[in-house]
Amino acid sequence: MMSKEESEVYKANENFYEAFESFDMAKMEKIWHKADYIQCFHPGWGMLRGWEPVMTSWRRIFENTDEMRFLLTEVRVEVRDSLAWVTLYENLTNRLGMEVSAAVVLTTNIFERHPVGWLLIHHHGSPVAQPPTPIDPSTVH
Amino acid sequence: MMSKEESEVYKANENFYEAFESFDMAKMEKIWHKADYIQCFHPGWGMLRGWEPVMTSWRRIFENTDEMRFLLTEVRVEVRDSLAWVTLYENLTNRLGMEVSAAVVLTTNIFERHPVGWLLIHHHGSPVAQPPTPIDPSTVH
Repeated sequence: MMSKEESEVYKANENFYEAFESFDMAKMEKIWHKADYIQCFHPGWGMLRGWEPVMTSWRRIFENTDEMRFLLTEVRVEVRDSLAWVTLYENLTNRLGMEVSAAVVLTTNIFERHPVGWLLIHHHGSPVAQPPTPIDPSTVH
Repeated sequence: MMSKEESEVYKANENFYEAFESFDMAKMEKIWHKADYIQCFHPGWGMLRGWEPVMTSWRRIFENTDEMRFLLTEVRVEVRDSLAWVTLYENLTNRLGMEVSAAVVLTTNIFERHPVGWLLIHHHGSPVAQPPTPIDPSTVH
């Protein structure tokens, strides 16, 4: 059973992946806190820090993919005061033209509580050599 | 200029890499908080959660490497209340027998404040395709 705060963070995390799937920059901008210290580490990329570099990276991803779908597994939420971190596997399928590929990405997302709600301040996704097994069915959403 | 708390976290992070280089399990055990929610994501590995799985992974790494040296770059520390996160590049060289290899790992470490000091609760390291350039000289240690 999740606490009220954990549920809020869980929802904020889901909103992030909905914004990701939507390829809508306006939605993605609402997910993140607009601050110099935000960071985004895409799988295999280097360190990106600050609003402009992070948003530019999303624009590039959105422009170079036609469709993307996420199935999130092993989602775990931890909250301490004004910070929360979420870990999960992104089981993702993406399409560019006729080419469809699948990948598993292991992710750490850090959220910070603000008057408007929990905002993403750190995304770290990294490639996983093999699909995770076994999956705990209770964490599949 | 770092605050007192940031300096403490910076030092805790350095201690982690000293424990890593020492291959000494007793030292590594002192770095981590002994809790069910600790997690460790080694580059390319899957999700490890809890004391035993995390410590077993360090034992395996220590047993399968003869020497390892880290040069940390772009080290950044953020502190909020009882939590802190550190991001950096691990420029590492490791040796097993006559074989020496180098790699760059992009890392997020989360520390939690406890009566004994800042303890590691989350380590997420991921492979980077290319060495980071340019390096900001002010962050080389």
